[in-house]
Amino acid sequence: MKTYLECIPCFMKQALFAAREATGDEGTIKRVLDAVARQIPDIPFDCPPPKTARHIYGAVRDITGVSDPFRRLKKESVRLALGHYERMKAAVAASDDPLRTAALVAIAGNVIDFGAHQRFDLEAEMDSVLGKPLAIDHYESFRRRVGEAGTILFLGDNAGETVFDRILIETMGKRTFYAVRDIPIINDATVEDAEESGIGHSARILSSGCDAPGTILERCSPEFLELFRSADVIISKGQGNLECLSEVEGPIFFLLKVKCPVITRHLGARKGGLVLMDARRRLQSGHEPGVDAEPATVVGMKP
Amino acid sequence: MKTYLECIPCFMKQALFAAREATGDEGTIKRVLDAVARQIPDIPFDCPPPKTARHIYGAVRDITGVSDPFRRLKKESVRLALGHYERMKAAVAASDDPLRTAALVAIAGNVIDFGAHQRFDLEAEMDSVLGKPLAIDHYESFRRRVGEAGTILFLGDNAGETVFDRILIETMGKRTFYAVRDIPIINDATVEDAEESGIGHSARILSSGCDAPGTILERCSPEFLELFRSADVIISKGQGNLECLSEVEGPIFFLLKVKCPVITRHLGARKGGLVLMDARRRLQSGHEPGVDAEPATVVGMKP
Repeated sequence: MKTYLECIPCFMKQALFAAREATGDEGTIKRVLDAVARQIPDIPFDCPPPKTARHIYGAVRDITGVSDPFRRLKKESVRLALGHYERMKAAVAASDDPLRTAALVAIAGNVIDFGAHQRFDLEAEMDSVLGKPLAIDHYESFRRRVGEAGTILFLGDNAGETVFDRILIETMGKRTFYAVRDIPIINDATVEDAEESGIGHSARILSSGCDAPGTILERCSPEFLELFRSADVIISKGQGNLECLSEVEGPIFFLLKVKCPVITRHLGARKGGLVLMDARRRLQSGHEPGVDAEPATVVGMKP
Repeated sequence: MKTYLECIPCFMKQALFAAREATGDEGTIKRVLDAVARQIPDIPFDCPPPKTARHIYGAVRDITGVSDPFRRLKKESVRLALGHYERMKAAVAASDDPLRTAALVAIAGNVIDFGAHQRFDLEAEMDSVLGKPLAIDHYESFRRRVGEAGTILFLGDNAGETVFDRILIETMGKRTFYAVRDIPIINDATVEDAEESGIGHSARILSSGCDAPGTILERCSPEFLELFRSADVIISKGQGNLECLSEVEGPIFFLLKVKCPVITRHLGARKGGLVLMDARRRLQSGHEPGVDAEPATVVGMKP
């Protein structure tokens, strides 16, 4: 997926938020914003946004001297998510279709995100997810392919969301590899966050080797790439992974909550919608990314 | 009021919105964003945001070649607002305290704004305003001072909002001068917009001489400054005028809807709150601008 003009103000907003998490010194935060502003004319629009985000969060790191500004928020997110684990696990077990419910719970967990949003309500999300319709629903294909799969590669997204991914992994009951970012970036999960979420009980956790908030294949490790090539099913969580893999061929299912107007347009799904999309089915059926379901800027004036 | 770090991403967002209104050419819009990004390191933080906004909207104008990108939205706003005129006028006349109700209606009209927001619902705003409490309520002082006033200087803000200002002007029944921006900037009202709103029936419309989306006194005309010095009451509408006049002494009442976290902090009032503030009373009572009523970035995570 390419970068859109709407990504530019969002990059600035993210830089400000991350710098504020890193330091209380206004002068330092200003230097971060200036550095990011200077990068803007050189942003490559033919690359996915996480490629640029790498540089932006790199500037935050370099200028503030803080390598993991979201450490506190990540720990808190995992702690809060673990508080929902037993309840959601029971809801999955009690449902008519535990795999579908577990997928819904994992998608709803994608609400935890300090890149696109910075505000969310995990409690409300978990309360409302059961029985919610999917904005893009390729569940039948997902169910069949997961059922037949020997090995699953799971591409994690945010810390805390990991706890709900764990429920899906446990429900699938397959040999699963859980790949996370190589270094802390935004609130994306690292090996440590995945371990604290308890994923190690049911999957092998590994770093993708990539230091961006998404899975940029040319930046991934050989070990990861081997898994990416050989896995029977790849479950890709979140916007960042979708942005990097939307044009990649493979047995990929994209599970995410739609959080920004760019993804809204790309998928033709409403903001806030829950998506379970079979990448192959999209390509085969000629599903047209770029459909403008909702303009990026809408004026809600009624006559 | 000074410029805050939160204003920076907002400037980029505004530049994108304005450029999109001006042109559909993505390359031109990109050039606008690049130009604005290059301005960021030089933004003077000790000046009010409208001073910077002047340069930003100037870049939009220069690069797109469109002098009034919001022309269509302004015309539409005035048309929609006029559709509410009779109903709100009747509601004011039927109320126990027509002056208070007219002030509320004028403040609610400040919801029309394509700078801070870009989305709003005028219908809902007008439906809910009657009887709404004010977040800052210096109405008693306003009532007394308007009652005693010979001449009122009214500083307009947005096109469309002008129609609701007209209701307040008609209700006050005083000799009123209605000052607007000198040139089109964002959707701020110009002489033409004020005339189309029918303000000419009950007030003398004039340009402030200022080309910024706020009243920067050193950029105003001698005629306006004479009125500013001699008026018994000055009614200042909207965030932009407040940002420019918050430290200026005078018989000023600030009427606005709080639309951004910076104003939220400055006033100590909630986002969305309706404000009727006596500038003198604020200074005398030691009301402390800068109180952090709500942090600029709040994480709505519940345990």
